[in-house]
Amino acid sequence: MHYHVDTFINVINILGILAFALSGAMAGVKKDADIVGIIILSLMACSCGGLVRDVMIGDLPPELLRSTIPLFLSIVAGLATYFFYSRVDRIRHPIDFFDALGLGLFAVVGANKAMAFGISPVWSVLLGLLTGVGGGIVRDMMLAQVPTIFKSEIYATPALLGALILVAGKSIWPEESHVFMTLGAIVCSGLRLLALHYNWHIRR
Amino acid sequence: MHYHVDTFINVINILGILAFALSGAMAGVKKDADIVGIIILSLMACSCGGLVRDVMIGDLPPELLRSTIPLFLSIVAGLATYFFYSRVDRIRHPIDFFDALGLGLFAVVGANKAMAFGISPVWSVLLGLLTGVGGGIVRDMMLAQVPTIFKSEIYATPALLGALILVAGKSIWPEESHVFMTLGAIVCSGLRLLALHYNWHIRR
Amino acid sequence: MHYHVDTFINVINILGILAFALSGAMAGVKKDADIVGIIILSLMACSCGGLVRDVMIGDLPPELLRSTIPLFLSIVAGLATYFFYSRVDRIRHPIDFFDALGLGLFAVVGANKAMAFGISPVWSVLLGLLTGVGGGIVRDMMLAQVPTIFKSEIYATPALLGALILVAGKSIWPEESHVFMTLGAIVCSGLRLLALHYNWHIRR
Repeated sequence: MHYHVDTFINVINILGILAFALSGAMAGVKKDADIVGIIILSLMACSCGGLVRDVMIGDLPPELLRSTIPLFLSIVAGLATYFFYSRVDRIRHPIDFFDALGLGLFAVVGANKAMAFGISPVWSVLLGLLTGVGGGIVRDMMLAQVPTIFKSEIYATPALLGALILVAGKSIWPEESHVFMTLGAIVCSGLRLLALHYNWHIRR
Repeated sequence: MHYHVDTFINVINILGILAFALSGAMAGVKKDADIVGIIILSLMACSCGGLVRDVMIGDLPPELLRSTIPLFLSIVAGLATYFFYSRVDRIRHPIDFFDALGLGLFAVVGANKAMAFGISPVWSVLLGLLTGVGGGIVRDMMLAQVPTIFKSEIYATPALLGALILVAGKSIWPEESHVFMTLGAIVCSGLRLLALHYNWHIRR
Repeated sequence: MHYHVDTFINVINILGILAFALSGAMAGVKKDADIVGIIILSLMACSCGGLVRDVMIGDLPPELLRSTIPLFLSIVAGLATYFFYSRVDRIRHPIDFFDALGLGLFAVVGANKAMAFGISPVWSVLLGLLTGVGGGIVRDMMLAQVPTIFKSEIYATPALLGALILVAGKSIWPEESHVFMTLGAIVCSGLRLLALHYNWHIRR
């Protein structure tokens, strides 16, 4: 059972990284960056959330420097977007879909790692949120734009909720963290997808 | 005596955090962020200066992750600004006042902590400056604006001076650091308040 | 022989730091920053690449806090630019020249340091790139501009190539790292200078 959950998480994680990487690459192409700049933006979009989390919890050098998957996927995403922009743009809706899956997974994985490093529950939730939304913030800042999460879309709220479900659940039933990881990710990604589909906004 | 000084410093510290948190929340409301985005901006404005300082001096996980005051005050500031913007806007002058107090206190507290971690005097002054102005820089960068401190206002100079007074004083009379902390904070906050009141500018 | 190479590297390093510092100071003057803001921008432009690298490889407190050269050169660059902007502007071509030399040197020095801290070859190349381009990215972000490296100029590519030459060479002939450092720096700086001189662009 756990084996299946892990495989499922790994597959979604890779799709999530790829979705964030594609979002970075597309932003780069829109700003006329060259191929190296596009790959750098792509890498930042899919790794900066986890990177800042790792610096804050003191896990140095960060996970990113011990893995090649984000880099490999960024190069793939960068090259694909550079040479086939119109085709990649056509799958923007699938990208939003994977981005939503990635958001949920990054949020629970980030919160889970923070707890494992002895961070308090409240801050573990916030570090989960940061892991989910950090890459997009850095990507937008690089392009001198106000990050999406500050522009009234339901993006940070689902990530916060997903991380909260994991941290609350794991605090009460530490043995069942896989269940709450899955549940948190589903709630976060589900809410984000519903918000995208029905064009929900929270407004004053 | 020290007890009174500490209580005084704690009260000003909390008012300073609240002032920075309110400045972040108001910036978020102006950019139409949702409530979670507003609280995130609020938290960044009141914590990022100390956060970058802690990463640089190697105090990981940073102080922020071991405290709940900045988070609590950010939520308060975020909710208050979100639901009562016009009333919060009306106390903008008091906010500038607490921001000036917070600037002075953050500058001396930051420099003091850097010295305690064995950082050289020159860099302790600069880390004090960073602690004071860092949150505002990150807040403005998040909103794709040129940070206030780069736009000709007398903001960085008082912070630099306050940190310098503490570091110079503490280097010569280590026993009397409370005196120089108070003196540095008063000089910094006083200069900033005079600059606000008389609309001073340093111009080429 | 090594003595001459080291002296050569030190001289170029100082000229590189000065060039990055001048680029930061000029950007600050253009945005009407006050003198403290200008010096801060100057310092960020010449130090943030190495700073982020040091945080990522876990070398805390970072090199920057143990050195006074970048700070001293930033103050010199800031004051010179503030008081003699038109004269500094007139030597903009020499600044581009030193910036290109600095780029090459920072890229190989950064990659070399990452390898010394046990970072994998692939990430050592990327940390070399980051050391070279990081300061300029932060400088431009501070001023709410899209960083130069994302705007189609041949800037990141030479830095990547220079770092790659060092890492590949040092991996195969560890004894001859000085040779590959020099070679990587020459290739990077040379390519950048040729791109500047002939106004090369990589375009889709």
